[in-house]
Amino acid sequence: MFAPLQNDTFLRACWRQATDHTPVWLMRQAGRYLPEYLATRARAGSFMGLATNVDHATEVTLQPLERFPLDAAILFSDILTVPDAMGLGLSFEAGEGPRFARPLRDEAAILALEVPDMDKLRYVFDAVASIRRALAGRVPLIGFSGSPWTLACYMVEGAGSSDYRQVKTLLYSRPDLMQRLLAVNADAVAAYLNAQIEAGAQAVMIFDSWGGVLADGAFQDFSLASTARVLRQLRRDGPDGQPVPRIVFTKGGGQWLEDMRALDCEVLGLDWTVNLGRARALISEGRQAKALQGNLDPNVLFAPPAQIEQEVAKLLQSFGAPHRDPLNPGPTHIFNLGHGISQFTPPDHVAALVEAVHAQSRQLRALRA
Amino acid sequence: MFAPLQNDTFLRACWRQATDHTPVWLMRQAGRYLPEYLATRARAGSFMGLATNVDHATEVTLQPLERFPLDAAILFSDILTVPDAMGLGLSFEAGEGPRFARPLRDEAAILALEVPDMDKLRYVFDAVASIRRALAGRVPLIGFSGSPWTLACYMVEGAGSSDYRQVKTLLYSRPDLMQRLLAVNADAVAAYLNAQIEAGAQAVMIFDSWGGVLADGAFQDFSLASTARVLRQLRRDGPDGQPVPRIVFTKGGGQWLEDMRALDCEVLGLDWTVNLGRARALISEGRQAKALQGNLDPNVLFAPPAQIEQEVAKLLQSFGAPHRDPLNPGPTHIFNLGHGISQFTPPDHVAALVEAVHAQSRQLRALRA
Repeated sequence: MFAPLQNDTFLRACWRQATDHTPVWLMRQAGRYLPEYLATRARAGSFMGLATNVDHATEVTLQPLERFPLDAAILFSDILTVPDAMGLGLSFEAGEGPRFARPLRDEAAILALEVPDMDKLRYVFDAVASIRRALAGRVPLIGFSGSPWTLACYMVEGAGSSDYRQVKTLLYSRPDLMQRLLAVNADAVAAYLNAQIEAGAQAVMIFDSWGGVLADGAFQDFSLASTARVLRQLRRDGPDGQPVPRIVFTKGGGQWLEDMRALDCEVLGLDWTVNLGRARALISEGRQAKALQGNLDPNVLFAPPAQIEQEVAKLLQSFGAPHRDPLNPGPTHIFNLGHGISQFTPPDHVAALVEAVHAQSRQLRALRA
Repeated sequence: MFAPLQNDTFLRACWRQATDHTPVWLMRQAGRYLPEYLATRARAGSFMGLATNVDHATEVTLQPLERFPLDAAILFSDILTVPDAMGLGLSFEAGEGPRFARPLRDEAAILALEVPDMDKLRYVFDAVASIRRALAGRVPLIGFSGSPWTLACYMVEGAGSSDYRQVKTLLYSRPDLMQRLLAVNADAVAAYLNAQIEAGAQAVMIFDSWGGVLADGAFQDFSLASTARVLRQLRRDGPDGQPVPRIVFTKGGGQWLEDMRALDCEVLGLDWTVNLGRARALISEGRQAKALQGNLDPNVLFAPPAQIEQEVAKLLQSFGAPHRDPLNPGPTHIFNLGHGISQFTPPDHVAALVEAVHAQSRQLRALRA
């Protein structure tokens, strides 16, 4: 159905298999720092015009791969498509970020919430299939969704927030209603990711972008528990029978790695505050071992290439010796940023980063051969 | 010179001495959630008009103590007074937060930076002495400053930031210049806190509000190292010969508690993402043991009093059994929020919180007697 995969380094690393270099991709790699993205977006008229048009979404997803030898592609879409399909009315005002026309502001609105008809998200699944065809096996395609908690933040606040006052007021005042909202979100996210897998996504990632704003205790009871509810419902294999690895990324979740170890997923994403060596010691061994993904500060990309290379070296050394056993799984690292790439990033600095990760990680393996 | 102290619970807890209840104060306890504060601010005309007028600063510092039986007062001021005295031109636009007229944007500006003449900050030291007199020994007075790194963030960005792009570009591109800026800031903060101690501050707190945005490694090399440089220069005793405990609070620093254990201070502040029991296990024993301060999510105060009481119980239980040895220091907890109180907080919920901390912590001690 789809062309065979030519570069499986990313998927091998997800499964904790030895690779000859450290795979690298970047969160938001198809985005505003690329002039060709801005050109396509201008033609599309708006962000949602871009995300809902299969040809545009395919085009921008592939743009960074034309420039940089990245080891994975990620679906171009937004984390808020699911609540939009639930009827909350998503829009993007210029320079303002996402906004819902009908945020959840009372008990009735939450009780009325249902898993949306996946047909309303057909444009996403069509984009997945189109991108997968356009990739023609160059690299694997990652699908994604926001986490139940992160969606709930936007659904209750109606937009981004600096203090999460409304969503946390609900959480602390009416934990029962918050759990009901998270359950609906979790079931919707599971259906959404399963449909992406059916359409051709070869890995899926859950972005818990706002998990880190929760208090210790509340994170485990609300965000982590609802992410686990998603994972329990995910299909394990794609339509080609290939197993589909699952990545969970909680921004600001570094203190909760020991709790996240219990998640039924293959990879944990880390932001730049986490010590990669410490995370490896906590997460890369034992029955619940996982691959690690991350975690360069996106602001490193504003420094000159020589400094970028130094910071790459620090991260690779912090992770430590690559695992080299061809027969057994072991610790693996997928290089990424600790958050989405900034729109102000010079594209040639991204080229320097990808080159440094590939060259240095090959050298490290050669040194230890 | 000043009246004798009637309630030393907070200071005893700072020194890890047993107390008959858990002391409580709140970051930004003198602030916009109090109608009487808004009235004084209206009379003062502006935030800086309030902060630079000794009588106004004294009045608002004492306002929360008239309402709630808090165990400490904290100087009413702003963390950005020091760079203002360096000539950067601080102002507060309505609804916009602080802004510098002359942010540091080139090497020459950073090389020209000097520790300011402390006479320019006389209004702060006069306020400390005036507040101390007005307190008449009711509770101890805490002085404070921003940390060298947190000041640097505002000095380079010129205002608050969502991505810290400019200050991190400087850090990653020119670490030498960043260290020079932090050294000047550290020496200025030390002189500033020493002058507050000379004027009558009975404890001092360093607010590393933006330490948590740094990457692992950069936090230790830049923020933590420059905070340590401040601590090395602080005087140990007030003019009355009483030792002055030092509190360090890094928002978002929960992953770095083991690094912070080496700081030469008495208390570590914690935000709400930190598990208090785990922090106690890491920090409350051994040669470098410290008291812990924190760490309720300020958004808990939007829930009804019954839920507030429950969350207080959870935190007190998470810290665990109070230490009761009258002869030796042991683990102590100073109750606080994990960040400044929100301007939208209902004052009667603050009353419920303070009452709950006092009553429940006394009960816990009685149960274990």
